[in-house]
Amino acid sequence: MARKRQSQRVTSYEVAKLAGVSQATVSRAFTAGAQIAKDKKDRVLAAAKQLNYYPNSIASSLASASTNIIAVIVGNLDNPFYVESLHAFITHLQASGKHVLSFTISQGKACDDAVLEALKYNVDAIIVTSAPLSNDLVSMTKGAGIPILLFNRSSDDPTLLSVRCDNFGGGQELGKVIYDAGARKVLILRGDPQGSTSRDRVAGFRLAVQDKAIEAVRIEEIDGNSSYDGARDAIRERFKGPNPTFPDAIYAVNDIMAIGCIDELRERFDLKFPEDIMIVGFDGIREGQLQPYKLTTIRQPINAMVLKTLELLAAIGDEEDTVKADSCVIPGRFFEGSTVTQMEQVGTKIP
Amino acid sequence: MARKRQSQRVTSYEVAKLAGVSQATVSRAFTAGAQIAKDKKDRVLAAAKQLNYYPNSIASSLASASTNIIAVIVGNLDNPFYVESLHAFITHLQASGKHVLSFTISQGKACDDAVLEALKYNVDAIIVTSAPLSNDLVSMTKGAGIPILLFNRSSDDPTLLSVRCDNFGGGQELGKVIYDAGARKVLILRGDPQGSTSRDRVAGFRLAVQDKAIEAVRIEEIDGNSSYDGARDAIRERFKGPNPTFPDAIYAVNDIMAIGCIDELRERFDLKFPEDIMIVGFDGIREGQLQPYKLTTIRQPINAMVLKTLELLAAIGDEEDTVKADSCVIPGRFFEGSTVTQMEQVGTKIP
Repeated sequence: MARKRQSQRVTSYEVAKLAGVSQATVSRAFTAGAQIAKDKKDRVLAAAKQLNYYPNSIASSLASASTNIIAVIVGNLDNPFYVESLHAFITHLQASGKHVLSFTISQGKACDDAVLEALKYNVDAIIVTSAPLSNDLVSMTKGAGIPILLFNRSSDDPTLLSVRCDNFGGGQELGKVIYDAGARKVLILRGDPQGSTSRDRVAGFRLAVQDKAIEAVRIEEIDGNSSYDGARDAIRERFKGPNPTFPDAIYAVNDIMAIGCIDELRERFDLKFPEDIMIVGFDGIREGQLQPYKLTTIRQPINAMVLKTLELLAAIGDEEDTVKADSCVIPGRFFEGSTVTQMEQVGTKIP
Repeated sequence: MARKRQSQRVTSYEVAKLAGVSQATVSRAFTAGAQIAKDKKDRVLAAAKQLNYYPNSIASSLASASTNIIAVIVGNLDNPFYVESLHAFITHLQASGKHVLSFTISQGKACDDAVLEALKYNVDAIIVTSAPLSNDLVSMTKGAGIPILLFNRSSDDPTLLSVRCDNFGGGQELGKVIYDAGARKVLILRGDPQGSTSRDRVAGFRLAVQDKAIEAVRIEEIDGNSSYDGARDAIRERFKGPNPTFPDAIYAVNDIMAIGCIDELRERFDLKFPEDIMIVGFDGIREGQLQPYKLTTIRQPINAMVLKTLELLAAIGDEEDTVKADSCVIPGRFFEGSTVTQMEQVGTKIP
């Protein structure tokens, strides 16, 4: 995009002189949230307008080696959990004078290209919220001195920092709730089969149910592609044909799939939740709490996770290379909706 | 954030030499989506890793006067329409090698601080999707040679470019549909009373209904704060007390308020849509098409609006200052859900 720019830039010194204030005051006038009297700010902005002055962080960042830009790579924005996470990053970073450069990648694709792009902008850090990352890229970011951090996922590479919810523990809690309610036939809707998140949520659930093994629980797993449409397709396929029999409960490893299940089973079979079938999800997204769903779920502590991420990044900066890589697992919070109920006769549905 | 950075940066020339390729090939290896053989890319990345090289767009942007960063200022991320718009900007800009620096502002606050921050990053353009903007700030962006563009809103300033949906026309279409279905008592849920969007959507609706004035239509307007919770609160307040009487139809000027209305009226009065009461919304967000809602609405053409925005920005750049400011209004598309039905006895509900 070609554009006229001034060859000789006006400096803050000239603005300060015209406005009759100090250079520090000019700087404060251009810093969001800085303490400055309204009349002084107005004077500085008027002078800046007259002289056609605007501040430039990028030039000064080359000197200070900090751009205050954090790259956030998000995979699947069709899942509201990632949208809520991105929103939390934008809000919390902005409050501390930093900004989000957002990258999105298609589902199933590696985020190497996005990381390469982010490196070009000399970002202060890169946060990866989904998708695999090659080892070469990880080395490159380390070589460039740019911290990289995984959000809501873990990695086999022990040197990679990550912040995530306790997916195993959350799955365990849901397994206990479903077993105690009397369900003995359970259908699990898995997410990305390659992802650690879905795997951990299923493993925790299975352990809780096996722990209880006074009475056997039959578990069947199908793939819901982590998405609303994927869940609807999987449920349609699973219960096609005449007179299907339904499980006592469904465990969708994320809320958006649980919503897809509910919509599909209501539309096709007019099933009632929890009277005809119980369902639980995971994430605690806003949609799951709309009146037609009121989903019982594990709520991910997005704000706590985002703040922890920023804290880890700051620690890396403060102590240079002495901070050891340390991953952080934050427990989710059980949220009781209205999609689980005590079954009247435990186990009677097993033929 | 303090951090070790190399004082003497490795150049692409050294990487090209080690990898046995041209400098242009090194550049392509670091450009997302560029045509390059896999083995060449691997060689370049291996060499880069060995030499600890990473490309830097910001330094080169100071020479070319283009950072390829577009600032997108979003107001209310609780309204899924803005989330879908942000997603579309990230996706379409990334496809053309540009990136989004996101800013969010609290509802009701001016976006001046966000614009000041964006100016510091020498962005190629600023897109404002909501909230008021002061004249001083507009002058400053123009002085800096940075185009500013309004998305989904208009301004009294005729020199400000804007891209938006035909809110008046969409409101008109919904008014016609609601009148033809037989509704003679209508409740309108307004959004931001200061915003042009809500005003235009209401005005179009009213005109369509008046045009038809064979039979009088009673219209009542209340404020829903453009949000889900705001709509629920407004509906609760409006229909408190014993034996409330309901209108024939509700027109919520955005979908998220329509969803709030439906949830509140279902939960408190067990009303059925459209049998007991009709409802229409505006925007066409994903949530509105979930199975429990299937909302009749006007769908905003988000992709077309985003592409038009980028086209206008490119035109400004190409022809320097010769392009006249020109706003662009794109028609929405009527979407027939299942929340409108032909009333059996037109007008009988009027006492």
